[in-house]
Order: sequence, then structure tokens, then C-alpha cells
Amino acid sequence: MQTDNRQIYVDNAATTKMSRTAIDAMLPYMDKIYGNPSSLHSVGQRANEALAGARERVAKLLGCEPREITFTSGGSEADNQAIVSAARLGARKGKKHIISTAFEHHAVLHTLDALKKEGFEITLLDVHEWGIITAEEVAAAIRPDTCLVTVVYANNEIGTIQPIAEIGAVCKEKGVLFHTDAVQAVGHLHINVKEQNIDMLSLSAHKFHGPKGVGVLYARKGIALTNIIYGGAQERGKRAGTENIPGIMGMTAAMEEACANIDANAEKLIYLRDKLIAGLSAIPHSILNGDAKSRLPGNVNFCFEGIEGESLLLLLDDKGICASSGSACTSGSLDPSHVLLAIGRVHDIAHGSLRLSLCEENTEEEIDYVIKSVEEVVTYLRSISPIWRDLVTGKKQFIIK
Amino acid sequence: MQTDNRQIYVDNAATTKMSRTAIDAMLPYMDKIYGNPSSLHSVGQRANEALAGARERVAKLLGCEPREITFTSGGSEADNQAIVSAARLGARKGKKHIISTAFEHHAVLHTLDALKKEGFEITLLDVHEWGIITAEEVAAAIRPDTCLVTVVYANNEIGTIQPIAEIGAVCKEKGVLFHTDAVQAVGHLHINVKEQNIDMLSLSAHKFHGPKGVGVLYARKGIALTNIIYGGAQERGKRAGTENIPGIMGMTAAMEEACANIDANAEKLIYLRDKLIAGLSAIPHSILNGDAKSRLPGNVNFCFEGIEGESLLLLLDDKGICASSGSACTSGSLDPSHVLLAIGRVHDIAHGSLRLSLCEENTEEEIDYVIKSVEEVVTYLRSISPIWRDLVTGKKQFIIK
Repeated sequence: MQTDNRQIYVDNAATTKMSRTAIDAMLPYMDKIYGNPSSLHSVGQRANEALAGARERVAKLLGCEPREITFTSGGSEADNQAIVSAARLGARKGKKHIISTAFEHHAVLHTLDALKKEGFEITLLDVHEWGIITAEEVAAAIRPDTCLVTVVYANNEIGTIQPIAEIGAVCKEKGVLFHTDAVQAVGHLHINVKEQNIDMLSLSAHKFHGPKGVGVLYARKGIALTNIIYGGAQERGKRAGTENIPGIMGMTAAMEEACANIDANAEKLIYLRDKLIAGLSAIPHSILNGDAKSRLPGNVNFCFEGIEGESLLLLLDDKGICASSGSACTSGSLDPSHVLLAIGRVHDIAHGSLRLSLCEENTEEEIDYVIKSVEEVVTYLRSISPIWRDLVTGKKQFIIK
Repeated sequence: MQTDNRQIYVDNAATTKMSRTAIDAMLPYMDKIYGNPSSLHSVGQRANEALAGARERVAKLLGCEPREITFTSGGSEADNQAIVSAARLGARKGKKHIISTAFEHHAVLHTLDALKKEGFEITLLDVHEWGIITAEEVAAAIRPDTCLVTVVYANNEIGTIQPIAEIGAVCKEKGVLFHTDAVQAVGHLHINVKEQNIDMLSLSAHKFHGPKGVGVLYARKGIALTNIIYGGAQERGKRAGTENIPGIMGMTAAMEEACANIDANAEKLIYLRDKLIAGLSAIPHSILNGDAKSRLPGNVNFCFEGIEGESLLLLLDDKGICASSGSACTSGSLDPSHVLLAIGRVHDIAHGSLRLSLCEENTEEEIDYVIKSVEEVVTYLRSISPIWRDLVTGKKQFIIK
């Protein structure tokens, strides 16, 4: 039983609550320093100074130069622009092969689908049952006509972390552009684009307590970006539209806050995560999705045999727990998660998934309550499940032992 | 002399100060109803209900159905998506001719440039010295292979208003899609997309005291939109990326506020505008750009012979007046405004332009101060201008009588 009426929000991979710091950083730019940074007058120039300052601060946090930062409307736009830019550059040299993984976010996969229709060839690497690829696998897939390797930094459903620096080194050696969708990683993991040989990186503010509707595309200098949005000369002519100054200021403040606390947050989250994993592993016929250790500090993802994910979520919601079956971006779909299929879960099992994504505000008391609640709800759902009856009566074979 | 330290902001076509109503509408969605609208749990569903409500409210204000509304990151993205969508639909039928005007915003012109490189043929209609096209001119330009007519509702520099309903009727009769960039018009002029036969319309929140980084593409049902941003299934799969709920709520509130006060604001602004036009017309060798009557209630745009626009702006800024020489989006450019060239101003004259764009918060006292200040600054700049010396000594001929 929940002792107060507060909701337990464990869906931070879908989106986060904005921090006070981020909100306070936005407010002055709404009705005080509200100018258009392209305007020559002082109200505009104050906004322009803020924009330049934000660009420097974001660049410092990523380990790059300010001119390598393009502000976008979010992670999806950044992913699209990175991939399309690399494809256009590649096509000019007759290179139309792109390497990615089977469990990228749809912002990557659907952009690759569109390029496939244009004649690009796409290789999607197997991510194995543990959800991690290796740099050697990337190296083996690179061909003379490969123009881009794009690999998610940390998967949005199962949180597994890829060996980005190693992949970056391979790509650098072979002269292939390397992009990473770091939407789930920025603010949660230490990132330095130069040290890790990352050519392009996408991030989204609302995944680390910043505002929705704003993100960043880092692109190493020398990489000519292709416009997704044409128009005014903002962002060195590569991203048209009046800059979202309040959003950019909120994002910058949230990113600084997250990066400053990255180790302390990780320590706390790993403790809570591992407690949650241990608790849920005790439920019979349950299985953790993705490697247990090389995963985001706040990510837990389980499959429970014999139940259906949507019912699990709704009953947890009744108990005040906000969780997810996987990516929020595809929650309207009845198809099982492509991520869970990619790590080898069969359809029946993939339907019974639960993602719990923690943030530093979650408490141990909440985790205890979540473990108890999931156990109760899984038990209840199994008690009314015809599939479960078939499993326990031996009519069907258990898949999860 | 300015009596207090307050700045006089007369650059509302570049961007506006957010209204209290708009800010207050955003705040709850930052740290209270902060869920991802795609999430099934109650925090997400509350955000989803807000999103659905906003879509209904925006649709009502435009006179269309909620499902005809796509939320975007702003006006530029909406313009790009509308034009690219119409081009793709046209190309499938072998129709690759687009009609527009010579003084569109760059979000339209540069998108058309990109299509031109793909083999589309673009006809840019002459906008005449007064800055208004006619429906007859559109009708005469339509060919059997025309797939789109895209005409700005009200020009962003000189504020002239186009006969949108008449153009819409012509396009409907000829079976050609009609898009209008209404970024400067929404919240300032009465618009009803059905009555005006508008198939697609773009708008941007920060032009009517809403937030930056959010806009709308209205597209009549039956028009299949092409993605600019691929990824999640948001916005019926036509615009990926977690919805910017705070921005959308702020925009919706600002739009309702602007539309509710549209007549009262227009009456006040037209009075101030016409006073400003009369005052600046009294400066010798000055000329109003664009038709004096069929223009936005808050738009004033002048050329002054023998001076340079940037100096004018900087000296006005010293006097506390925030104004513009034209579009903020191109202020980094040394080229004269393509809008002023389109209405027949020669280079020398186009360089000496001043746009003053008012909002309902401007006072008559401010307008009096602006008139006096512009007069002083123009007189001073002419006193140190070699061109002006040549003009008064008869070495050069005056262009503006």
C-alpha cells in the first residue's frame, strides 16, 4: 500500500520532470531577455549573448568546440540530420552503405528506412542476447563503400551501453563517419566526443530534467551538415528557425546540473537499480533484459512469462506507479518491441515486458514498494491468464525457466 | 529624451515578449503534468489529454478539425513540411511546377530552391511596388503541371496582406494545393481556413506572445504529409519527437488570447501605425514601403534616402528603441532585403530601410518618441553621409522625391 498519494515515477527514460534549476534558467528569457538573437538591437543582442554562452557551456560538457554545436528541436531531429548529412556526403563519393544496429531508436531506424528507399544499403548488426555489440563486429562490417556507422550510446529500452570509444577508434582508423544517438546517455554517463572519437552525437534535453522540444546535434568541424529545415541563417545556416532561447537556456542548465552530479547520481541509482533487479529476479519465470552490469545506472527491464505488458502497466498505475513496457514513442503500437525481439525474446515473452527507469529522486522506500507491487500484480495477472494455466498444467512449455 | 529607462520594443515581427497568460499556461507542464503523452500511465495520460485539448482549441481558432493540426518546432519547419509534402504529392502525378511570390520568407524560398535542384520549376510572381499580388495573377500562372501555390499571408518585412480567400478560391477551382505562410498573420488577422479555401497553413507561436520553438502546420484532411523528421509515431506518424507539451500549451493560450482581442488590438494598432506613418512621411526623401492600408495593423516600413540601415538601428538603440531594418532572420547578411528589391526599391534605397513592428503594449507616447528619434537620427546620419552631400549638391539625383 502506498502511504501517501504521491505517484512513484519510474519512467524517466520516457521523459523527466524538469528540475527547478532548468525552469529558473528558462524564465528570464520568456518576458525579459525575450529578443530574437538575430536582431541587432540590445534586446536581441542580450539574447544572442545568452545563446553564445549556452553554446560554449554545452560544448565544454561534451568536450568539443562551440561551433561544433547545432541546437535542434530535440533528439529525433538531431538523429535525422546527422544521418541524412552523412548519407549525402557519402553519396557524393559513391559510398552508399550504412552500418547500424537492430535495436536503434526509431528516429534512426526510420531515417535509415527512408535512405534505403533511395538506394542506400543498410547493415543492422546483431546485438546478441545481452544487448551489446563489439567494435570488432563493427570493423568486420565496414566495407569500402561504408559512409556511416550509427550506434546508440545506451539503448532506450534495456539501457545497455555500447563500447562507443572502441567503435569510434575503429571508425576513425577506417575513415568512416561515426554517429551515436546519445539521447539516453547524456547527463547519465561520462562523455567526451574527442576522446571517444565521436564524429556526430545527438542529445535531447528532456531526458535529463531539461525542457521538451530542444536538443543538440554535435558534428565535428569539417562535416558539412545537410539542412532538414531550410530558411533563415540561424545555426550557421544549417538549422533555420528563430532559436528557442528559453529552451536552450533550460537545457544548458539541466545538462550542467546532471553532469556535475553524474557520479553521485550513478552511485545512488546503481544501488537502487541492483536492488530492484534482485527483487524482480525473485519472481518465478522472470528474466532481466540486457546485460546486468553494462547498462544505464537507472535502467531495469524485465520480461514476465504468461502476462501481457499493458495490463501490468495499468494495474501498477492503479498502485501509483508510473512505468512503461518499453519505448513511449511506440506505445500506440500493438507490435512487440523491436528491441526485445533484437535480443532474441520471442513474441509471447516480449509482450510481457516492464521497463522501470529511475532518477536520483527515487528513494529506497519507493523501490521496495515497486518490488512488492510488481510481485502482486504479476501474481494476480497470472491467476487470470489462460496462457499461464496452460504453462503450469504443462500444456505449454515455459520459455523463461 | 526617453523619460525612463524602459526600452521601447517595436520589433514584434522579429519576436514578441511572452504574455503572462502564455507563461502561466506552460508552467504546470514543466514539473507537475510532465509526462510523455505517449506513456500509458496517468502522468502520461494527463499530458496526452492536455495535448488533445490544445489540438481542439487550435483547430477551433483556425476553423478546422483537430486531426488537421500537426504541432511542429515552429514556422520554418511547418513551411518546409507543407511545401515538401505538396511537391512529393505532385511529383507522383508528374506535376512539378510550383507558384509562389518574389517576397516570401526564406523558409519558403530556400525550400523552393532545394526543390528546384531536384527538377521542380518555380514561378515567383511579381508583387508590384505596393507589395500585393492578385488572384487573377495566380490564376494566369497556373499550368496543368502546377502542384502547389504558396503565398505568404502577410509579408514579414512590409506587412502587406495578400487576398488569401480569393487565391484560395482560384486554387480550389483549378484543383491545385494552396499553402500560406501565415506566421505574421495568425493572432493579428481573422483567419478561417475552410472559408478561405486554405489547404495548408503555417504558424509560429512566438509571433503572438507565445513561446519560441513551437508552431503548427494545418493540412486539410486527405493531404498526405511527408515526414521532415522520422522516428516515433507522434502526430499520426508525421512528425516524430516527444511532443513539446509546455510549448504547445503556451502557444495555445497565447493564440486564444490574441484571437480574443484581435479587433481591439487592431483598432489600437492601426491608430498608432497610421500616426507613425504620417510622422515619418514628414521626413524629407522618405518613403513608406508597401501599401498603406492593406497591411498588418502593427507594421511600418520606411526607406530613407542617403542613409544606411544598420547605423540607423544602432543609434535608435542608443535612444532605447529596438527596431529592425527588415527580417531578423537575415540580419547577418550584407545583401539588401529581397523583399524591398521585390517591390522595386533599388539597392541604394533598400539599404536605408527601417521596420517598426508594434504590439498592443506600445503607447502613443512611445510612438511620439519614436517619430522624434527617427527624425533626429536620420538628420544626423545625413549630416555625415557623403552620399547625402552628393544628393543635396546635385552630383547625384534623388530617387525618393
